[in-house]
Amino acid sequence: MHWTSHDIRLANRFAVLRHIITEGQVTRPEITAATGLSLATVATLVSELLELGMLAEVGQQESAGGRPRTVLAVRPRRGVLVGVDVTETYVHVELFDLNLGVLARAHRVLAPSQSRVEQVLEHVVSAVEEGIARCEVERDTVLGVGVSVPGQVDREGGVTVYAANWDWADVPMRDLISQRIRLPVYLDNPAKASTVAELWFGASRGYDDVAVLTLATGVGAGLAVGGSLYRGADNGAGEWGHTTLVLDGRPCRCGSRGCVETYVGAPGILQHIRELAPDSGLLQGSHANGNGTPAKRTPGNGTPAKSTGDQTATVAALAEALAAQDPRAGEVAAVTARHLGVAIANLVNLVNPQLVVLSGWVANRLGRYLLDEVCAVVAREALPGPHAATRIALCPIENPVTLGAATFALEGFLGNVRDWG
Amino acid sequence: MHWTSHDIRLANRFAVLRHIITEGQVTRPEITAATGLSLATVATLVSELLELGMLAEVGQQESAGGRPRTVLAVRPRRGVLVGVDVTETYVHVELFDLNLGVLARAHRVLAPSQSRVEQVLEHVVSAVEEGIARCEVERDTVLGVGVSVPGQVDREGGVTVYAANWDWADVPMRDLISQRIRLPVYLDNPAKASTVAELWFGASRGYDDVAVLTLATGVGAGLAVGGSLYRGADNGAGEWGHTTLVLDGRPCRCGSRGCVETYVGAPGILQHIRELAPDSGLLQGSHANGNGTPAKRTPGNGTPAKSTGDQTATVAALAEALAAQDPRAGEVAAVTARHLGVAIANLVNLVNPQLVVLSGWVANRLGRYLLDEVCAVVAREALPGPHAATRIALCPIENPVTLGAATFALEGFLGNVRDWG
Repeated sequence: MHWTSHDIRLANRFAVLRHIITEGQVTRPEITAATGLSLATVATLVSELLELGMLAEVGQQESAGGRPRTVLAVRPRRGVLVGVDVTETYVHVELFDLNLGVLARAHRVLAPSQSRVEQVLEHVVSAVEEGIARCEVERDTVLGVGVSVPGQVDREGGVTVYAANWDWADVPMRDLISQRIRLPVYLDNPAKASTVAELWFGASRGYDDVAVLTLATGVGAGLAVGGSLYRGADNGAGEWGHTTLVLDGRPCRCGSRGCVETYVGAPGILQHIRELAPDSGLLQGSHANGNGTPAKRTPGNGTPAKSTGDQTATVAALAEALAAQDPRAGEVAAVTARHLGVAIANLVNLVNPQLVVLSGWVANRLGRYLLDEVCAVVAREALPGPHAATRIALCPIENPVTLGAATFALEGFLGNVRDWG
Repeated sequence: MHWTSHDIRLANRFAVLRHIITEGQVTRPEITAATGLSLATVATLVSELLELGMLAEVGQQESAGGRPRTVLAVRPRRGVLVGVDVTETYVHVELFDLNLGVLARAHRVLAPSQSRVEQVLEHVVSAVEEGIARCEVERDTVLGVGVSVPGQVDREGGVTVYAANWDWADVPMRDLISQRIRLPVYLDNPAKASTVAELWFGASRGYDDVAVLTLATGVGAGLAVGGSLYRGADNGAGEWGHTTLVLDGRPCRCGSRGCVETYVGAPGILQHIRELAPDSGLLQGSHANGNGTPAKRTPGNGTPAKSTGDQTATVAALAEALAAQDPRAGEVAAVTARHLGVAIANLVNLVNPQLVVLSGWVANRLGRYLLDEVCAVVAREALPGPHAATRIALCPIENPVTLGAATFALEGFLGNVRDWG
């Protein structure tokens, strides 16, 4: 039995706050109508949030034939939430008010030689401190810091279990950060952060069963069940990028072959270009030698920064060529869409989600050009029932990882509030 | 928000009854210890079940230094539960007491010419009536009838949406049956029935996140999240048999290619024999012509009964040859285990279950010979984190589909009981 009455209380607390954040100003009956909760439950939850200072009563609204209704709104400056996106090449920090509006940003570039734990930690701490200083708030206004790190994360223990590109294993990242910045820290990975951002503020709002796909250098999925992030036995769920699509196919950095990631992640798309259009001029940087040999990627090897830079530039060049309806680029897009479509059909058949969201920087760049063909492939490959129940959409959020990380901090803060009554 | 306090109440009701059924005789403090529920909650739930006549107080147990504790047990004859397993070749009915002990059985063979809705319905009704007559109980003692039908089922509407081998679509099976037998009917498919039987009475008892794989002529999975069956957007979740393992691989009856089912379902195993050991004598019946040509299987085509009989006989011959350590049979087992292992690794990486259970008649026959090699493949193919969290086991239940169907009837009955307090 996973769920207790405390869990439901907490989920309802999230639902009420989420509705007020997204609507701006609402009355209690409006919250009741939108959430399906009883008026009594809404009244209790609103009282809690008023008591915490997270909400304010900002006015009265006439109601036809009844008493005027009190209008509620979030008190945005009651607290600051910090979202940190740690990647192989940078640390990006955003600070949010309680409406999840951005108050400040800070950024650090990680050179390829700076992947040791102490080095990454130093950048995280200095970027967070810079962000807090920019906000000009008292330190105790900061309710928490959510941190996304690549790889597998033991969330309960706050430990980075495994980060393929860095040779990190069992790094107690949460405690290392919180010892330095003396604030509550919540650790998870980008796929799960993006999923939570999607559920609160994105295309997934109001859906129960969702798959949020992160397409980047690495590829992953966040699964939501009943409107909540599904974590699996030890927070390892969602490694869709490392499911086999082509038995005995392309070698993957995980040590296996034919993984989804090797066909739809950025390095996989570069490989499609090498195979289909090596002389197209699409390959940028050191990959543009046209020799058709992929960079050797084995588990635990650091990715050279030049290679990541080349990925970004090549994907950008591909997007431009697609915008210009270049036929060579079209071939690359078609083969990418085909692999992505079959891999999504696998998810649709297994999980039967209401919504599949494409997120991550590769989806940001290429999603609009791939979406129609991906939908056509899914229509062919998925079973009729699950296919009819599923919609595929692009993620509308600009920085879902920092927003999701900050949302983890908000959820953590609300989770520590004592239940009333 | 899927879960309400009613849902939790119901899940707790299930947990208490399940513990009493599996333990036989227990006291309230023992239920409290086993379920993690509070003593007050257990007391309320036990009172409800006593009131319903489903439990009895059967004695007193001395307790060290305290008052004697009342011993509780199920009243097995308070109700009868019917489980019906409808397949392409037979209808099997089992009737259970409230301890889920088998009271009676009835069986009907379906000839290949008898796949029309009215014909199947007639067999279901007559087998259920025969079973009830054999039990010699009043009709109102029967609490409900659970029916498993192959294919996709709209559970809420009680409709068989799609049954590939029968060309059935949108058949309102639940209402057709209940109009005839005038009892509450609960409809679902074999993968989901097996999963519920596993969660209540099998290897999955006490686990939260589980995948139960049904290996038969068709292949499917039941996913459990938080100890409850996960259904997805429209009860379509679990079509693991129709996820692509080999892009552009073997043609599948679903219309796609390279589906898991075409490598690990019974017809797929027969195809391995044709490819690897056509002259081994393993192929039985009409398939034993050794010409290497698979039977044409397109969506909606009926499976000839001879072919299904051949499958059963061939899988049985393969099991015997494996028991005798026949090397040709070993090759077939190895290639089957490899495909099954990679397909399970996909599930492990995506869903991160605590337990994967192999069920269905093919697993019953071959599971013991495949398990070690399957585990070795999963160890190689799955990511280290999710792999470490997962155990793979064979289903210990003899007839999980009828037991699970009866359990749907029990869950349905308990779900209709009014909440107290």
